Amino acid sequence: MKTRAAVAWEAGKPLTIEEIDVAEPKAGEVMVRMVATGVCHTDAYTLSGDDPEGIFPSVLGHEGGGVVEAVGPGVTSVAVGDHVIPLYTPECGKCKFCLSGKTNLCQAIRATQGQGLMPDGSSRFSKNGKPIFHYMGTSTFAEYTVLPEIAVAKINKAAPLDKVCLLGCGITTGIGAVLNTAKVEPGATVAVFGLGGIGLSVIQGAVLAKASRIIAVDINTEKFEMAKLLGATDFVNPSEYSDPIQNVIVDLTDGGVDYSFECVGNTNLMRSALECCHKGWGESVIIGVAGSGQEISTRPFQLVTGRVWRGTAFGGVKGRTQLPDYVEQYMRGDIKVDEMVTHTMGLDKINDAFDLMHEGKSIRSVIIY
Amino acid sequence: MKTRAAVAWEAGKPLTIEEIDVAEPKAGEVMVRMVATGVCHTDAYTLSGDDPEGIFPSVLGHEGGGVVEAVGPGVTSVAVGDHVIPLYTPECGKCKFCLSGKTNLCQAIRATQGQGLMPDGSSRFSKNGKPIFHYMGTSTFAEYTVLPEIAVAKINKAAPLDKVCLLGCGITTGIGAVLNTAKVEPGATVAVFGLGGIGLSVIQGAVLAKASRIIAVDINTEKFEMAKLLGATDFVNPSEYSDPIQNVIVDLTDGGVDYSFECVGNTNLMRSALECCHKGWGESVIIGVAGSGQEISTRPFQLVTGRVWRGTAFGGVKGRTQLPDYVEQYMRGDIKVDEMVTHTMGLDKINDAFDLMHEGKSIRSVIIY
Repeated sequence: MKTRAAVAWEAGKPLTIEEIDVAEPKAGEVMVRMVATGVCHTDAYTLSGDDPEGIFPSVLGHEGGGVVEAVGPGVTSVAVGDHVIPLYTPECGKCKFCLSGKTNLCQAIRATQGQGLMPDGSSRFSKNGKPIFHYMGTSTFAEYTVLPEIAVAKINKAAPLDKVCLLGCGITTGIGAVLNTAKVEPGATVAVFGLGGIGLSVIQGAVLAKASRIIAVDINTEKFEMAKLLGATDFVNPSEYSDPIQNVIVDLTDGGVDYSFECVGNTNLMRSALECCHKGWGESVIIGVAGSGQEISTRPFQLVTGRVWRGTAFGGVKGRTQLPDYVEQYMRGDIKVDEMVTHTMGLDKINDAFDLMHEGKSIRSVIIY
Repeated sequence: MKTRAAVAWEAGKPLTIEEIDVAEPKAGEVMVRMVATGVCHTDAYTLSGDDPEGIFPSVLGHEGGGVVEAVGPGVTSVAVGDHVIPLYTPECGKCKFCLSGKTNLCQAIRATQGQGLMPDGSSRFSKNGKPIFHYMGTSTFAEYTVLPEIAVAKINKAAPLDKVCLLGCGITTGIGAVLNTAKVEPGATVAVFGLGGIGLSVIQGAVLAKASRIIAVDINTEKFEMAKLLGATDFVNPSEYSDPIQNVIVDLTDGGVDYSFECVGNTNLMRSALECCHKGWGESVIIGVAGSGQEISTRPFQLVTGRVWRGTAFGGVKGRTQLPDYVEQYMRGDIKVDEMVTHTMGLDKINDAFDLMHEGKSIRSVIIY
């Protein structure tokens, strides 16, 4: 069948909106009609050509919300009509990683997903008989997309898909980093580096965790308003200080914060985030994705004196097990999503969403099909 | 009064054995007659002059066992005749760090300890009226030494001080890193980098934790025998492989170990130790002390994909609360100490102990007063 899609034909070029072919779901796969999708920095990173693992031509997009349109043979966990959020981190429930109880990084289909292919090694997208690759196993920039059954989370049908699609990446990542990865406890102090969609979601997570103090750090003071709205208590602009920002935060907090989160992808900031942690117990979590080949560094003394350096992907959240509850928390008003949507547009305007992001004018644009 | 002591008059020179003056303990202090002391690499590091915080002239030594000879005003937790192990990491029980429940790094007397002084800002050692500095708050290379009350752990009088003195540093550090810092669980896989006193003690800790596989890593294959005796199950000599050692260990363990420990102080090895950990959950603990100014580095992807980087000092062990139980475990035969003592000598031969260490011929020399 045919689907409208925004195709990334090559790196560095705008997406083109066109009709492409999408094949029926095979065994263990589902076809989803996307209702909405967010546009995330990771999509822009890959489109830019900076992502060494980027593959073209492809259908980007990984922050979607949709309805199951068809299921392939053997699919049992979802049915036609179910509302789902695609998962770029799937959950097979059977691999060593899923069974470990220690990580959300299911590896069941990692190899093919990284190659832009479905688990059987082929693509469901094509144009004029030439394959177009999948992206992050999700490809939400197509109105009809095909996903492995293990890569969709079935959610409450009452949830508005043009909002909860954002739980497919950034918001969940930020909140999960606080609750799942760092396990911030009530009364703890928190520093958040970078106030984009992830950083703002870390603030939400810290509020949910009942942190006593949430220090928002950004060189763009315009972002402080939204951070305050979501619950940040302190605001620090590194460009207003001559001292390294870690020293400023250590002074501000009588020795450092209990937890810090890097939400930018800047390796220097990752070091600052670690070193602003309290001696003896402070833990820093890397969420941002650094440029290819870049490295983090610090003096080992920072760790020997009790700081801990961690990272997280998708906030440590197991998509099929835990994401439905994130949707419920949104429905109860505990997780704020509507406030994160700064722009809404049709698929034909998707390149505008990338432009707004590059200009720093968007927390999150949502594409409505 | 007078005491025999080995004095470090200046960096890079042998110690000289002589009579020096030691003052009576002041309020909150105790005088301890040392019965025995180990000689540790940290003493050698400071004596070499490479330690930027080294202070001379001083009385080195931090791995002691002794008997309380006198107590100053207000001392209540120990009495004359008690057997004690000096603590370079004290435990006041009252500071923010002690009360946190998250660290053993008591900071009550850190500033003066770092300056080679007692908490009141003066030294108890002198010669011809000229002060000689304390070291690590312990100075166990003097037959009579003075310590803060919060820097001695009272232990079972039946324990042989010429053995359990080694619980004052290396053995406890290695075992504590496994049990307190990493919290290795039964069945876990462990890699140990460096088979000196600390590394061998990590092996002991891994055995106590019921690890399923303990991989001993050293470029000196002669050290494998002792590692095997203590419970290591696999032996890897990096110089026998052309691949980076982290890759070798990942291959050997179907994806990496659950826990790794760096016990050398080599920043390249710290990176290897992190990167040989299993994706999703592997944790690496830095125990070794790196040279001044050296830094660790890695790609942040290593952490984002679930590895955790930690460090530990004195194995995270709270000296006054936990060390007495380490002595009991030794008495029961669960912790092996006797096997670690490779040489025993009088104080007058202490420079030989340093020579043996430099030649790699000693796990631990013990000085008997």
